[in-house]
Amino acid sequence: MVQVLIDKAKILIEALPYIQRFRDKTVVIKYGGNAMVDEELRASFAVDVVLLETIGVKPIIVHGGGPQIGETLERLQIPTRFERGLRVTDDATMEVVEMVLGGTVNREIVNLVNRGGGRAIGLTGNDGGLLRVRRRDHEGADLGRVGEVVAVDPDPIRAVADAGFIPVVAPIGADSEGLAHNVNADEAAGAIAEALGAEKLMLLTDVEGVLDTQGTLVRQLTESEAAKQLAEGTIQGGMIPKVECCLAALHGGVGRTHIVDGRVLHAVLLEIFTDGGVGTLLTR
Amino acid sequence: MVQVLIDKAKILIEALPYIQRFRDKTVVIKYGGNAMVDEELRASFAVDVVLLETIGVKPIIVHGGGPQIGETLERLQIPTRFERGLRVTDDATMEVVEMVLGGTVNREIVNLVNRGGGRAIGLTGNDGGLLRVRRRDHEGADLGRVGEVVAVDPDPIRAVADAGFIPVVAPIGADSEGLAHNVNADEAAGAIAEALGAEKLMLLTDVEGVLDTQGTLVRQLTESEAAKQLAEGTIQGGMIPKVECCLAALHGGVGRTHIVDGRVLHAVLLEIFTDGGVGTLLTR
Amino acid sequence: MVQVLIDKAKILIEALPYIQRFRDKTVVIKYGGNAMVDEELRASFAVDVVLLETIGVKPIIVHGGGPQIGETLERLQIPTRFERGLRVTDDATMEVVEMVLGGTVNREIVNLVNRGGGRAIGLTGNDGGLLRVRRRDHEGADLGRVGEVVAVDPDPIRAVADAGFIPVVAPIGADSEGLAHNVNADEAAGAIAEALGAEKLMLLTDVEGVLDTQGTLVRQLTESEAAKQLAEGTIQGGMIPKVECCLAALHGGVGRTHIVDGRVLHAVLLEIFTDGGVGTLLTR
Amino acid sequence: MVQVLIDKAKILIEALPYIQRFRDKTVVIKYGGNAMVDEELRASFAVDVVLLETIGVKPIIVHGGGPQIGETLERLQIPTRFERGLRVTDDATMEVVEMVLGGTVNREIVNLVNRGGGRAIGLTGNDGGLLRVRRRDHEGADLGRVGEVVAVDPDPIRAVADAGFIPVVAPIGADSEGLAHNVNADEAAGAIAEALGAEKLMLLTDVEGVLDTQGTLVRQLTESEAAKQLAEGTIQGGMIPKVECCLAALHGGVGRTHIVDGRVLHAVLLEIFTDGGVGTLLTR
Amino acid sequence: MVQVLIDKAKILIEALPYIQRFRDKTVVIKYGGNAMVDEELRASFAVDVVLLETIGVKPIIVHGGGPQIGETLERLQIPTRFERGLRVTDDATMEVVEMVLGGTVNREIVNLVNRGGGRAIGLTGNDGGLLRVRRRDHEGADLGRVGEVVAVDPDPIRAVADAGFIPVVAPIGADSEGLAHNVNADEAAGAIAEALGAEKLMLLTDVEGVLDTQGTLVRQLTESEAAKQLAEGTIQGGMIPKVECCLAALHGGVGRTHIVDGRVLHAVLLEIFTDGGVGTLLTR
Amino acid sequence: MVQVLIDKAKILIEALPYIQRFRDKTVVIKYGGNAMVDEELRASFAVDVVLLETIGVKPIIVHGGGPQIGETLERLQIPTRFERGLRVTDDATMEVVEMVLGGTVNREIVNLVNRGGGRAIGLTGNDGGLLRVRRRDHEGADLGRVGEVVAVDPDPIRAVADAGFIPVVAPIGADSEGLAHNVNADEAAGAIAEALGAEKLMLLTDVEGVLDTQGTLVRQLTESEAAKQLAEGTIQGGMIPKVECCLAALHGGVGRTHIVDGRVLHAVLLEIFTDGGVGTLLTR
Repeated sequence: MVQVLIDKAKILIEALPYIQRFRDKTVVIKYGGNAMVDEELRASFAVDVVLLETIGVKPIIVHGGGPQIGETLERLQIPTRFERGLRVTDDATMEVVEMVLGGTVNREIVNLVNRGGGRAIGLTGNDGGLLRVRRRDHEGADLGRVGEVVAVDPDPIRAVADAGFIPVVAPIGADSEGLAHNVNADEAAGAIAEALGAEKLMLLTDVEGVLDTQGTLVRQLTESEAAKQLAEGTIQGGMIPKVECCLAALHGGVGRTHIVDGRVLHAVLLEIFTDGGVGTLLTR
Repeated sequence: MVQVLIDKAKILIEALPYIQRFRDKTVVIKYGGNAMVDEELRASFAVDVVLLETIGVKPIIVHGGGPQIGETLERLQIPTRFERGLRVTDDATMEVVEMVLGGTVNREIVNLVNRGGGRAIGLTGNDGGLLRVRRRDHEGADLGRVGEVVAVDPDPIRAVADAGFIPVVAPIGADSEGLAHNVNADEAAGAIAEALGAEKLMLLTDVEGVLDTQGTLVRQLTESEAAKQLAEGTIQGGMIPKVECCLAALHGGVGRTHIVDGRVLHAVLLEIFTDGGVGTLLTR
Repeated sequence: MVQVLIDKAKILIEALPYIQRFRDKTVVIKYGGNAMVDEELRASFAVDVVLLETIGVKPIIVHGGGPQIGETLERLQIPTRFERGLRVTDDATMEVVEMVLGGTVNREIVNLVNRGGGRAIGLTGNDGGLLRVRRRDHEGADLGRVGEVVAVDPDPIRAVADAGFIPVVAPIGADSEGLAHNVNADEAAGAIAEALGAEKLMLLTDVEGVLDTQGTLVRQLTESEAAKQLAEGTIQGGMIPKVECCLAALHGGVGRTHIVDGRVLHAVLLEIFTDGGVGTLLTR
Repeated sequence: MVQVLIDKAKILIEALPYIQRFRDKTVVIKYGGNAMVDEELRASFAVDVVLLETIGVKPIIVHGGGPQIGETLERLQIPTRFERGLRVTDDATMEVVEMVLGGTVNREIVNLVNRGGGRAIGLTGNDGGLLRVRRRDHEGADLGRVGEVVAVDPDPIRAVADAGFIPVVAPIGADSEGLAHNVNADEAAGAIAEALGAEKLMLLTDVEGVLDTQGTLVRQLTESEAAKQLAEGTIQGGMIPKVECCLAALHGGVGRTHIVDGRVLHAVLLEIFTDGGVGTLLTR
Repeated sequence: MVQVLIDKAKILIEALPYIQRFRDKTVVIKYGGNAMVDEELRASFAVDVVLLETIGVKPIIVHGGGPQIGETLERLQIPTRFERGLRVTDDATMEVVEMVLGGTVNREIVNLVNRGGGRAIGLTGNDGGLLRVRRRDHEGADLGRVGEVVAVDPDPIRAVADAGFIPVVAPIGADSEGLAHNVNADEAAGAIAEALGAEKLMLLTDVEGVLDTQGTLVRQLTESEAAKQLAEGTIQGGMIPKVECCLAALHGGVGRTHIVDGRVLHAVLLEIFTDGGVGTLLTR
Repeated sequence: MVQVLIDKAKILIEALPYIQRFRDKTVVIKYGGNAMVDEELRASFAVDVVLLETIGVKPIIVHGGGPQIGETLERLQIPTRFERGLRVTDDATMEVVEMVLGGTVNREIVNLVNRGGGRAIGLTGNDGGLLRVRRRDHEGADLGRVGEVVAVDPDPIRAVADAGFIPVVAPIGADSEGLAHNVNADEAAGAIAEALGAEKLMLLTDVEGVLDTQGTLVRQLTESEAAKQLAEGTIQGGMIPKVECCLAALHGGVGRTHIVDGRVLHAVLLEIFTDGGVGTLLTR
């Protein structure tokens, strides 16, 4: 019995150097995919984040919500138009984006973290001018109210985090007229990490990480290796924007970026408290 | 020309004693009704609030959203059940309440204030444990997820207000299990005013104020007069809960409470910067 | 009745952008002339300054007192000697300068502001080493104890202003031996504005402002235009040192300088809260 | 040679317990009489005060100026009226009081301390509402603008002292209408000591201290002994109001009060740094 | 492999409620016995303490050193005298106590913690007047320079702990003459815990904890139960002073006290991070 | 009698400019030699240091302890080996060094200062990583655990000094493995003065100071003069390392360095409060 306890204590002790390294550091986590849907993964994510905050790390959660938006559009029978394969965000769609991201998904995550023992506060990108965007130009196609981030004001996040709360950010930004736009959650997370001088950016995905041509997980990539593989086409599909997002964040001064397999229980904690983690590390 | 300017300056000077009285004081404003719908009233409300914040008053906005909720329920074809004449908030309805209050209405007000030149941050009552509720018992009828406030944690509002932002609060609270409940906006505003030790609570309505039996506006009522009129039935209908809310806030230590005619342009500013204001003042 | 109030509220709202621009900014006002003599102008000046302080602007008053000094010299039958047309400040005269500026005029302005609802504290330039001067050389003539400012220690003003008081400064400075000297009030105001990094320097005069050759008020002048007009002799008489004072302050980093018609009621407020103001604006 | 230095060091060391006792404590000194006139005494007073401030004591100087006022009244040929043997302060006289106390005497002391190596700031009792008075009733006689202190706002003194300056206060107060009144300097010093919770109140006089019936200096008196001697008439003449002032201050919470022989060089320092000092100590 | 990591993460998560409970709380640990001698136990103690400090708990170490003192006395051939069975601390012995506790044992623990990744600062009870003692009276016998604690000044410990260091305290105190005395380490730890308002006092021993008459470990005792067992003689031998020390600390306001089996690896961590811990808990 | 007091006051006043110059400045004092042995010198040193701290100077004491170490080695019959004339510090010797410096000498000085009326806290160089060393290479000879300073972390000293305590530092440092090494006290004092940006470094010696070839005290030396005299061999014997230590400190940014005759009563005070002091001043 006592031996079991001692073994547990040893595991706590193993975490010590990682805790020391991340104390008082900011970690921005893009939360999405299965980790946001599966009940067990959801609960494990919540306690991971609360544990981080409790031991002195400053976690910032940025979430997406594509599937929930699609489902509500359908319930409201709002038709969707596509341009070059991408959904156009017209005013009716944007109204739903705000309802779902700000009113449903953001609230759920706040509740999730609160039930996990933490104190979360939800923000959207137009709170206090947090995310300033301009309309994204997509190869000449007009995608409507889809924004690209042009500036981040970190004050609202700092006000909340410095008071001991965990910020949960919905990726909606306002343009110079104050008009709300939808923003890609990975991009928002990267821009926020950069503006906060974060130690780490973590993108939760539904894949193992970056795979090589044999389909084996690549545990670590330098900036130049990643750029080379993007250029050569080794990195493909949905992984391309994620790797690009990491490279942009690294370039903007973020210490380390990770593409993490969010389907693994406690993926966030493993990424912080082990050397290997459960995905691909991209570094300078 | 210069004379016109001088006359304007005199009006600024007239405001001086009011500014001095409210400097660094908290004012909680329940925002709703026409003031939230009419474009001109919306704009006048936004600049009123921004002006208050700019000259050193601390405004807190608490909003409702009944009409918008009803409209979205209809669009989603969610049927409504009634108990003793009141709508029951079942889980499907509550989901819509969260979407609409947190995702649509709260966002709109944040944008409104931002466009008015301020920096607003939206909060809902479950952010950081702000509003703790229990299921309301309504004369034995089960109204579902309708909560009454049992505790307010003022920390989330203070974190936001102390950092120079204007808090905009959606009246949703969490029970001890973390389950979201709909809360009456007047009641939420009153409880928040009490928890913050506010100088003033202002309820915006679509009527002139408390009327006497001749239908004439009553400009001022003491606690005991109001209690007497409630008992005697002179105060009737929708005015009853509003007066009760004011009495509860006065009892909880709020300095002054007002039932304000929100259909008047700049009603908030008039209430702060004139002796009479545009409604009924309830005091101890 | 309500409409009147609404119109007043609109005028408050018109002031909002100006309040936002000057919030937490320092404004140095040279107070003198009719504005210091006429009862109505005096009262309007006092409330203007108190209003500024109340809404978050930091006003600093620097005053002269030539007429009052002359009158007291006469009452005391102290003879006056002139050099090249300027009065010589010998020791007996300087004693009167200190009595009148520090003991009468400064006190009156402190009382005036206090009665206007503010909290003023009087300072003279030798308090805490505020104004360090050297004897002014005037075209070879010895004017006695007339000083030119060589250094400003802003600490005494900051101590007073940061504690919420309105500083009222009498333009007397001490040389390196600690000997008191009379200083030109415009010059003292300019040097103080520069040392405090003021947003604005305002010189109250008894004329409309800078006039062009047709006698029409010039509403705005750039540094280079003003320098050109000085060189060409277009600017004449008593306006020359005032324009020179403004140019020196602009050169020293003060944001904007104004020569204001102090005979207009609420001239200070108009200068802050309207675009045109009531005089001439000199900018870089 | 070295022995001389060692002896000097020993004297510094003797001061150690006194320095430790008064560190961070407030000492209010009523400055007047010969100490304000004789050049050597003036210089010794200045360095005493500067030394106190340098080693961490907080000295506050309150001064009178009766002789200087009388002299200026004469120069201005302002006639003086007496009531029951006391000079009446009419408006013309009060004007001179303000000129002389605020403009001449206060300035001289500020300069004196500055030349002694300190940084003084002059205040008068109407600065920031420091001394609030009401018209004194003197046995039914109307003495004109002579005030008795009804309230002290310590904020202006604290603003100045906390910023590292030595406050020098002229005893002029304002009544509820803002009208300036002359205040007895001893009384002002006592009221200020009380409001600041001073450790010590020191009244500089031109006599040795309280004398007994044989004309021998009484080194120490308790409150009750002093009250007894006042009642019995042992204490006489000008010493009566000084002892009364000390008793009032003791009653108001001041730790120790002293009537000090200001004709002795370094009287202030001796009072702080020796057990006996050079006058009479009144204690509870 | 990933499963192993997940299991480790779960153990971290199990610790979460304990971390939340002890965050920013002070824990005083009496360190001694085998835990101070055995190499493996020493290392496990060091990392336990460093882990606590890293996650936001404030550990204070108080150590003994009886065996090391005895050994050095022998090496120096200093004879020992006994009174009623207890060693007398004469001046020669006290000199060795100071050398060994302050110079050897305290230094070793500081080094131990530093090598474990922490930043320790050694203090002895006479640093900054930390432990004030008087000579202990032991049933009439004169034990020499053995002190009992009469006052604790927590400032030196706070100065060190608030700056992010782990204080390590040697139990030597000074009497009112400044003469050093030996203090029982358990007693010193208890008095320090009380003075700091500690959440927890932990006494490391070389036994399992309090045993009942069958020799079975008693996991928990209330104050009154412990007092009863002391009175009845159920608690015996060396356990008596330890239980008395715990009762005194509880009485002085310490939240919980523990007699811990220091022979167990990571005993400190187990005591904080499990419900049962490895010894006996004494509570109010 | 009064005249004696006045003369004493004058001596206090003479100290004023020196107090003003050193207020809030750090002075590092290497304490050793006779000043540490002779009872009268010890007492005079203690009050000197306490006086400095009381009037706002920040003294840091660094001490040696060679004679006491030698004596204890002898008592413990630990044999000593020599290399090139210097004692080798093997492990057994180092154990004694720690006992004596940290446990005896450091404690005695802490007590000395406390009895002098101050509040001292003892530190050794391994507290909080204060002194980081590497093994000193002495002309190829292995002197064992003798370290040269490679880095100073000023945080532990600042934590103690900023909280109002006087730090007393024993010159023991830790290498990168955490192994304790003996450090020359002069060298430690110099390195600490440099790390703290001290205004002054004072080395107490048992000689008059630097002497010239006629044996006359040299009162002042510039860096270049001292370097020249070292090169020419004019400075000899034990004075060489002291002068080198001063030169290193000057080079590292310390304002002034002094080699002081510690056999003179109040040598520290004289060095601060007189122009000449009692030794040799080395300046840039």
